[in-house]
Amino acid sequence: MEKTILLGHGSGGKMTGELIDGLFLKYFNNEILNRKTDSAILRIPAENLAFTTDSYVVDPVFFPGGNIGTLAVCGTVNDLAVSGATPLYLSAGFIIEEGFSLAGLEEICSAMKAEAEKAGVFIVTGDTKVVKRGQCDKIFINTAGVGSLNSRHLPIPEGKNIRPGDKIIVSGYIGDHSIAIMGARENIQFEHEILTDAAPLNGLIRKVLDSDYEVVFMRDLTRGGLANALVEIVEDRDLGIRVHETSIPVRESVSGLCEIFGYDPLYMANEGKVLFIVRPADATAILESIRQDPSGADAAIIGEVIEENKGMAVLKSVIGGTRIIDKLAGEQLPRIC
Amino acid sequence: MEKTILLGHGSGGKMTGELIDGLFLKYFNNEILNRKTDSAILRIPAENLAFTTDSYVVDPVFFPGGNIGTLAVCGTVNDLAVSGATPLYLSAGFIIEEGFSLAGLEEICSAMKAEAEKAGVFIVTGDTKVVKRGQCDKIFINTAGVGSLNSRHLPIPEGKNIRPGDKIIVSGYIGDHSIAIMGARENIQFEHEILTDAAPLNGLIRKVLDSDYEVVFMRDLTRGGLANALVEIVEDRDLGIRVHETSIPVRESVSGLCEIFGYDPLYMANEGKVLFIVRPADATAILESIRQDPSGADAAIIGEVIEENKGMAVLKSVIGGTRIIDKLAGEQLPRIC
Repeated sequence: MEKTILLGHGSGGKMTGELIDGLFLKYFNNEILNRKTDSAILRIPAENLAFTTDSYVVDPVFFPGGNIGTLAVCGTVNDLAVSGATPLYLSAGFIIEEGFSLAGLEEICSAMKAEAEKAGVFIVTGDTKVVKRGQCDKIFINTAGVGSLNSRHLPIPEGKNIRPGDKIIVSGYIGDHSIAIMGARENIQFEHEILTDAAPLNGLIRKVLDSDYEVVFMRDLTRGGLANALVEIVEDRDLGIRVHETSIPVRESVSGLCEIFGYDPLYMANEGKVLFIVRPADATAILESIRQDPSGADAAIIGEVIEENKGMAVLKSVIGGTRIIDKLAGEQLPRIC
Repeated sequence: MEKTILLGHGSGGKMTGELIDGLFLKYFNNEILNRKTDSAILRIPAENLAFTTDSYVVDPVFFPGGNIGTLAVCGTVNDLAVSGATPLYLSAGFIIEEGFSLAGLEEICSAMKAEAEKAGVFIVTGDTKVVKRGQCDKIFINTAGVGSLNSRHLPIPEGKNIRPGDKIIVSGYIGDHSIAIMGARENIQFEHEILTDAAPLNGLIRKVLDSDYEVVFMRDLTRGGLANALVEIVEDRDLGIRVHETSIPVRESVSGLCEIFGYDPLYMANEGKVLFIVRPADATAILESIRQDPSGADAAIIGEVIEENKGMAVLKSVIGGTRIIDKLAGEQLPRIC
């Protein structure tokens, strides 16, 4: 019989202990976590810390190219990285439905371990709660993360230095993650399988930050996609943004499926794409540097910051027209991450 | 019609923005959060950081003396405080069921604000996910926390300096929280209402740590209760623990209800109780100091660390017998926090 999660695994007692020792410590094994103290004790020799959190409720839990654990690590690592920080430590809080497969949980932990290793971060503290059948949908994971932030990069999180003329770079094809989730959810067979793009981007970002070029802002293109990110950058600002539809990297297969299902790729969530705003003189050099990273091979300059259209992001369409990009109004595809 | 949470509130788009601006920023209002950056940017001038996380899934969400928000702040603050740290910043990750009342969410945020103010901590970063009806039970909250830890207190989290003769202090009545939850869940009318004991304990703990007396270990008595804490302290150690049943503070009403329902107060979860291990010479002075704090008025010395019974915690019963305390085996009362 398949071993499953029982209520006792969330009791804080013997069974929780067995889960911690037998599974979590096995996969997340590191000196800090292994001490099993109430709080992880960290030494971070940095003046500024970045601190972030995200809960992951993706449905289905397993999908082409990854699972909820992949997102739980990559998403939080990327939130730190786009703030200009070096991601260092993560927490992991599991809420599990009674009856969830132990093998499934192990697969999730294995994915978390793999992504944490790629990103060079450690999972140092955690928590497990188990709820009765029907009280949550399989498994939810929260990760919080801390990273160190060099004072030189302090203007990046708020994009304080954005100015007209700055170029906008996207690190690759948009929409893959949403299509991968939708395909798995609806059991659609694609001719060419589309995998999630989930990946830790801190390596790619670090290379760019450590260069002599100036990055003025970054944003990972998760819920709400590219459209939302562009609107949020300029709202309440004395600046506009113009992007060029023909320059935005979208796979033909993704744009085809979006047409069929009535989705707009601009609003599709990604889990391994970052938007950079950089000085115009540096744009080509930075683009080259991004493209040398496997996660950035298809990066492109997609537009620029402008003085006109203050507070708005506009799209120059293929046929030459211009339309204003709106913020995502409702919910395009729930539980995408 | 009552306003409720819709899927769009978790989209990352317009409605999420309205929830953030209209509710979260209103209650958690602080300079760092208000910047709405991908990560909160903190300045913590400390060599050592404590970092912890807990998810809260308590059922029912509202109960005598508090709600899930009360626990979400107090629990994580206390996990930092028992590590010897000064709690500073919290994250808050909400997973909300579609249809949950907006007024209910506001009440929860109001409780979080109140407890955060008492504890002197700031909620600086957050995340909101909304899942469809039936995919989670009303609302789950994860908080992670960071605090600064003075190097002088580095031995506390692991209890490295515990030795025979040390005294064990409990900061007050045990079991109240579990009874409050059980009463609310089962709709039991008590003659004297029993409220949750949830409270931030960092003030009480800070006063003790800043005294000249030596604290060698602390633990908050949450899931698994006093029993679990005692067993975990001595397991794999060359020491034993002996506690005296008559010294353990339990309200008569709580012990009566425990008898009726077949619960053991020793295993009952608390949300505002801490166990201290202190040097014998300091025990009375520390007890006095704890009792001066409103959260510690009923504190008591309940036992001591001993050389005998290595690896075990034993209870001297009222009638003089001795029994070994086991770790919580199954799940006494699920979703207690």
